[in-house]
Amino acid sequence: MITFAMFGAGRIGKIHAANIAGAEGARLAYIVDVDRAAMDHIAKLTGARPATREEVLADRSVDAVVIASPTDTHAELCVAAAKAGKAIFCEKPIDLSLKRVDACLAAVRRAGVPMMVGFNRRFDPNFAALKSRMDKGEIGTLEQVIITSRDPGLPPITYLKASGGQFRDMTIHDFDTARWLLGEDPAEVYATGSCLVDPGLAKIGDIDSCMVVMRTASGKLAHINNSRRATYGYDQRVEAFGSKGRMIAGNVAPTTVELANGDTVSADKPLHFFLERYAQAYRIELAAFLNALAKKRPMPVGAADGRAALVLAEAALASLKSGRAVKPKF
Amino acid sequence: MITFAMFGAGRIGKIHAANIAGAEGARLAYIVDVDRAAMDHIAKLTGARPATREEVLADRSVDAVVIASPTDTHAELCVAAAKAGKAIFCEKPIDLSLKRVDACLAAVRRAGVPMMVGFNRRFDPNFAALKSRMDKGEIGTLEQVIITSRDPGLPPITYLKASGGQFRDMTIHDFDTARWLLGEDPAEVYATGSCLVDPGLAKIGDIDSCMVVMRTASGKLAHINNSRRATYGYDQRVEAFGSKGRMIAGNVAPTTVELANGDTVSADKPLHFFLERYAQAYRIELAAFLNALAKKRPMPVGAADGRAALVLAEAALASLKSGRAVKPKF
Amino acid sequence: MITFAMFGAGRIGKIHAANIAGAEGARLAYIVDVDRAAMDHIAKLTGARPATREEVLADRSVDAVVIASPTDTHAELCVAAAKAGKAIFCEKPIDLSLKRVDACLAAVRRAGVPMMVGFNRRFDPNFAALKSRMDKGEIGTLEQVIITSRDPGLPPITYLKASGGQFRDMTIHDFDTARWLLGEDPAEVYATGSCLVDPGLAKIGDIDSCMVVMRTASGKLAHINNSRRATYGYDQRVEAFGSKGRMIAGNVAPTTVELANGDTVSADKPLHFFLERYAQAYRIELAAFLNALAKKRPMPVGAADGRAALVLAEAALASLKSGRAVKPKF
Amino acid sequence: MITFAMFGAGRIGKIHAANIAGAEGARLAYIVDVDRAAMDHIAKLTGARPATREEVLADRSVDAVVIASPTDTHAELCVAAAKAGKAIFCEKPIDLSLKRVDACLAAVRRAGVPMMVGFNRRFDPNFAALKSRMDKGEIGTLEQVIITSRDPGLPPITYLKASGGQFRDMTIHDFDTARWLLGEDPAEVYATGSCLVDPGLAKIGDIDSCMVVMRTASGKLAHINNSRRATYGYDQRVEAFGSKGRMIAGNVAPTTVELANGDTVSADKPLHFFLERYAQAYRIELAAFLNALAKKRPMPVGAADGRAALVLAEAALASLKSGRAVKPKF
Repeated sequence: MITFAMFGAGRIGKIHAANIAGAEGARLAYIVDVDRAAMDHIAKLTGARPATREEVLADRSVDAVVIASPTDTHAELCVAAAKAGKAIFCEKPIDLSLKRVDACLAAVRRAGVPMMVGFNRRFDPNFAALKSRMDKGEIGTLEQVIITSRDPGLPPITYLKASGGQFRDMTIHDFDTARWLLGEDPAEVYATGSCLVDPGLAKIGDIDSCMVVMRTASGKLAHINNSRRATYGYDQRVEAFGSKGRMIAGNVAPTTVELANGDTVSADKPLHFFLERYAQAYRIELAAFLNALAKKRPMPVGAADGRAALVLAEAALASLKSGRAVKPKF
Repeated sequence: MITFAMFGAGRIGKIHAANIAGAEGARLAYIVDVDRAAMDHIAKLTGARPATREEVLADRSVDAVVIASPTDTHAELCVAAAKAGKAIFCEKPIDLSLKRVDACLAAVRRAGVPMMVGFNRRFDPNFAALKSRMDKGEIGTLEQVIITSRDPGLPPITYLKASGGQFRDMTIHDFDTARWLLGEDPAEVYATGSCLVDPGLAKIGDIDSCMVVMRTASGKLAHINNSRRATYGYDQRVEAFGSKGRMIAGNVAPTTVELANGDTVSADKPLHFFLERYAQAYRIELAAFLNALAKKRPMPVGAADGRAALVLAEAALASLKSGRAVKPKF
Repeated sequence: MITFAMFGAGRIGKIHAANIAGAEGARLAYIVDVDRAAMDHIAKLTGARPATREEVLADRSVDAVVIASPTDTHAELCVAAAKAGKAIFCEKPIDLSLKRVDACLAAVRRAGVPMMVGFNRRFDPNFAALKSRMDKGEIGTLEQVIITSRDPGLPPITYLKASGGQFRDMTIHDFDTARWLLGEDPAEVYATGSCLVDPGLAKIGDIDSCMVVMRTASGKLAHINNSRRATYGYDQRVEAFGSKGRMIAGNVAPTTVELANGDTVSADKPLHFFLERYAQAYRIELAAFLNALAKKRPMPVGAADGRAALVLAEAALASLKSGRAVKPKF
Repeated sequence: MITFAMFGAGRIGKIHAANIAGAEGARLAYIVDVDRAAMDHIAKLTGARPATREEVLADRSVDAVVIASPTDTHAELCVAAAKAGKAIFCEKPIDLSLKRVDACLAAVRRAGVPMMVGFNRRFDPNFAALKSRMDKGEIGTLEQVIITSRDPGLPPITYLKASGGQFRDMTIHDFDTARWLLGEDPAEVYATGSCLVDPGLAKIGDIDSCMVVMRTASGKLAHINNSRRATYGYDQRVEAFGSKGRMIAGNVAPTTVELANGDTVSADKPLHFFLERYAQAYRIELAAFLNALAKKRPMPVGAADGRAALVLAEAALASLKSGRAVKPKF
C-alpha cells in the first residue's frame, strides 16, 4: 500500500485525488491547499486529511507526493519532498525557468527519490496504441510526425499572464509527445506564431496560434500546430508517417451516433477539453506511477523528460524571436 | 444510503457489485451465491458479507436486491424479495415461462415493491443518445428501425440448452430495444432462422442465426438480425429512419487509431463482447435504478417491459414454427 | 463495331445513349420515341437518327437494341426485336405480368438472340467489389445479407399508378441484388409494408415503406428495407455477413469534405438519386453488354434473372396480403 | 468552337487531349511531340492531326495551345504561342528559372493573350468545395492551413535530376494551394527537409521529405508536408482552421467497401496517384479554361500564379540552405 499526499486541490488535483482513492494499492492520506474549501471538498470525497505542507513532509508514513499546485510552487515542493525522501509525481511543467528546473533536478538526484512528470498524452489509449504499434514496426521506419493540438477556447488573461507563454504552457505537451514518438531529440527547432484569437495577447508578449517544425539529427521531421481556439472541441491528433505506412490517432467523441438529414451527415464533436479527453489517461498515468514505485522500476516519464520539453519550448521561443531554426541545448 | 444485497456472483453479478460499491448513495451489504469462491471474491472486492438468502431477506436494513443468479432462479427470488418488501433489480429474462413471469409479476404487484428489469441497451450512451435525440424530433416521425445484434461466438452447449433458445436468450434484448425505440408495441411478428454457425443446434431445437420483422398498429416497421458468430467483435448497432432523416448508433472501438499501409486503411474492431461494450451502460443502469428508488419515481424499465419482451420472443417462436406473422398477446 | 438503336428518350434512355456514344466499339444509329423533342435532343447529342420502330427493326445493320421506353412496351418490343434478330438490352422490369414475361422470354429463346436485363446495381463499383471479394472468400461462407434501398422522395402519383407497386417497381432491384449476392434463390419470402410517406397510397393499393425477409434452401437469410422517402439522399447500402467476417458497401458522397464547428462534425449527404449514384454503374453495365456481345459470351444478367426478380416480387405481394411466408415458384 | 493544339503526348498530354476531345465547344486539331508513336496514339484516339510546332502556330484557325511537353520547353513554347496570338494553357511549372519565367510572362503580356497555369488541385472537387465553403464563411475567419501532399513512390533518378528539386517539382503545387486557400501571399517561408526515402538523393542535391511553415502579413499560418513515399497511395489532404471551425478535405478511395474480420475493420486505400485522384480535376480545369476563353473572362489561375508559386519554392530553397525564415520577393 502506497500512501500519498496531494499538493493542490484544483481541477487536476481533484482528478489525481480521485484516481488515487480508486486505485488498488494506494491511499490518499493528505490534501494540502491554501484554498480551504477546495481542500475540504477533496477531503470529503476521498477521506484524505487536510493538512499543511510541514505535517505531510514530516509524516514518515507518506511514501509519495503528487504536486498539482500552481506552477510557480512546483520546483520548491519537489525539492522539499525530495529532501523528505518522498517519491514525486509532478504536474508539468516542473518550472518555467530552466535554471530552477536544473536546481530542482539536482536536488531530486541528490535525494535519490523517484520522480515522474505528468505528461498525460503518453497514457492516452489512442496515442499509446499508436506508439506501441509503431514500435512493433507497423509503419516501418518513422519518417515524419504531425501533432495537432488545439484548445477549445482562450483561458482567462490572468492564467495566461502566469503561464509562461504558449510554448511553455501548451506546446510543452506536444514537445514531449514529439520526443516520445520520434524516439530521438530534435536537433533543430523552428517556430512561428500569431495572435489570431485575441490580438490583445501581443501586449503581454504572448501568442495564441503557432506552428513548429523540428528536425532530428537523423533527419526525421516533426510538425506541431497549436491554437487557443477550436469551436468544435478539443482537437488532439497525431499522424505518424513511416517507410511502410501511416498511422493516425484521432479525436474521441462521446457517442457514435450519426444523423443524416436534408443538410448533412453529422456526428458528435470531439470531447470538450482535457478533463474529458484525458480522463482515462490520468488514471493510467497514475497507475503507471504506482506500478513503477511498487516494482522499483524507472519512471515511465522521468524528470529529464520534463526538462527536455522545456528546453524545446525555450528553443521555440528563441526561434520565434530570431526567425531562425534554433539548436536546442539539452 | 440504499443498502443492497446481491444474488449471484458470476460475470454479471461481479459487474453490478462493483457498480454498487462505487456508486454514491449505495452500499453492498450482502453477496449470496452457491459458489463459495465466487462469493468470497466479490466479498473481498467490495466489502460485502457472504450470506444466505434467508439472512438477506430477514435483514430489515436491506432496501434492495439485485438478482443476477441463473435464470431459473429469477422468478422465485423476485417473489421472495417482494414478500420481504425489498426493491428489486432483476437481470433479464424474468423467466423463460410466461406463466411463471405472470405469477411473479402478480406477487411483485401485491407486495407493492418497485421492480426494474436489466435491459442494459437502453442505458448504452450511444443508443440512449439516439433515442433521446429521436424523441426531440431530429428525424421527424419514426418510420422504420433496424437492429443489428451479433455475438462474437457461440456459447457452450450447456449454456444454450438452458437458455430458452435464441429468441428468449439473445433476441429478447432486441425485442426490448425495438419496443423502446418504436414507442409502440409490435402488432405482428414474423421470424425465421437457421443453424448456420453450428448445424448441431438443430438437435436441441435451437437456431443460431435469425431475422425478425415486426409491424406496429400504426404501420411502423422494425427489423432485427442476430447471429451467434461475429469474428470481428460484438456487433451492436441501431438504425432509425424517420420522415426527416436517419440516425445510426454504431459500434464502439477501443481506440481511434487508423493504419494505412500497402494493403488497406484499417481501424480497430468493435469492442469484444457485452462486458466491454456495455460496461458504461451497466453503471448508468444501476445509477438509474438508484435514482428512481431515491426519488420514488417509476422504474425506467419496469417489470411489464420484461414481460413484454418475452411475449415478443414467444410470438417469434410461434412464427418460426408456423411460417406466419403472429400477433403477440401482451 | 456494334450498331445500336435506342427505344426511349427519357431519363434512362438519355444515359444509355450517351454511354453508347462514348463507348469504344459501339455506335448509336437510331433513337425512337413518341416524344419528338426528347428524340431530337438525343439525336443532337449523339448523332443518332430519329426513326420509327419499323425502320429500326428493318435495318439489317442494327445489331442491338436498348429498350428504355415505358414499362408496358418492354415485352412487346423485346419480342419484335427478337424476331428481327437483334440483341436486346432491356431495362427492368421486363413486364409487370409474369405471364407476359414468360411469353416474351419464350419468343427471345426461339429467336436465339442474346438478352440482358438492366439491373444496374450489379455494376455499381461498390457492390461489385463487395461481391467479387466475397466470392474470393474474404468473409468465409455467406450467412446473411441486408439490403437497404431508400429513394429520396415519392414519385408522382401517375408514375406510381402505372408502376406495378413498390415490390415490382422498386424492390425488384433489391430482389435481384439479393439473388446475386446470395448465389442461391430464396425458398421463402415474407414481406410487410405500410403507407408512411403518403397514407393516400392505400387508395391505389400501394405501399411506400416495406421490409422483406427471405430464406434460402440452405438456410441463408436476407433482409431488404425500402422507403420512398430519404431526406438525406439516395440510401443504397449492402451488408454481407459470413463465417469469417462482415463486408459493407456504403453510400457515395460527392466530396470528402468534413466540417467541424460548434455543433457537429458533418460530411456530405449521399449522392441524390440513381442518376448520380449509378452513373458509373450504367457505363459499366453497357460495357458489359458490349463485351458479352463482342465475345459471344453469356449475358452478365440474363432474361431469366429479370424473370426471377419478378417472381420474388409476386411472392412478396402474396405474403403482404396473406401474412405468411410464401414459397416463390421460379 | 475553340480549336486546340496540344504540345506533348505524354501522360498529362494524353489526359488533356482526351478532355478536349470530350468537351463541348472544343476540338483538338493538332498534336505535337518528338515521340512519333505517342503522337500517333493521341491522334488515333482523338482525331487530332500530328503536326510540327511551326504548322500549328502558323494555322490561324488554332485558337489555343495546351503545353504539356517537358518542363524545359514550356517557357519557349509559351513565348512562341503568345507571339502567334494563341491562348495558352501551360502545365506547371512555367520554368524552373525565375528569370526565364519573368521573360516569358513579359512576352505573354506584350502579346496580350490569355494564359492559364495548370494547378489542378484548385479544380479537385474536394478542395474546390472546401475553398468555396470557406469563402462563404463556414469556418469564420481563416487562421491556419495544413496541406499534406505525399506521392506513392520515388520517381526515376533521371526524372528527379531534371525536376528542379522537390520544392520546384512537387511542393510547387502545395505552394499554389496555400496561396489560394490563404487568400494572401506568405510573407515568410521556412523549410527543412531530408533524404529519408533514398539517402542517395543527397548526391544530386535533392531531398525527398520536407516540411514547410509559412506566415502571411496578417499572421495566418500554413504548413506543408511532403514525401516521395506513401505506400498507402496518394495522400492529398487539406485542413483549414478558422475562428468558427475546421474544414478537412480528405483522400478519395475507389470504393466504399469496408471489411470487418478477426483482425480489423478495413477500407480501401486512397486512389493510387495523380492520374486517378485528379482525373476529374483535369476535366474541370480544362472546362474552366474553355469557359474563361469563351466568355473572355480572366483566367482562373493566371500566369502570375505560376510565377508566385515558383517564388515560394525559391524562398523554401533559400530557407533550407540558410536555416532561416526567408521573405519571398514576389
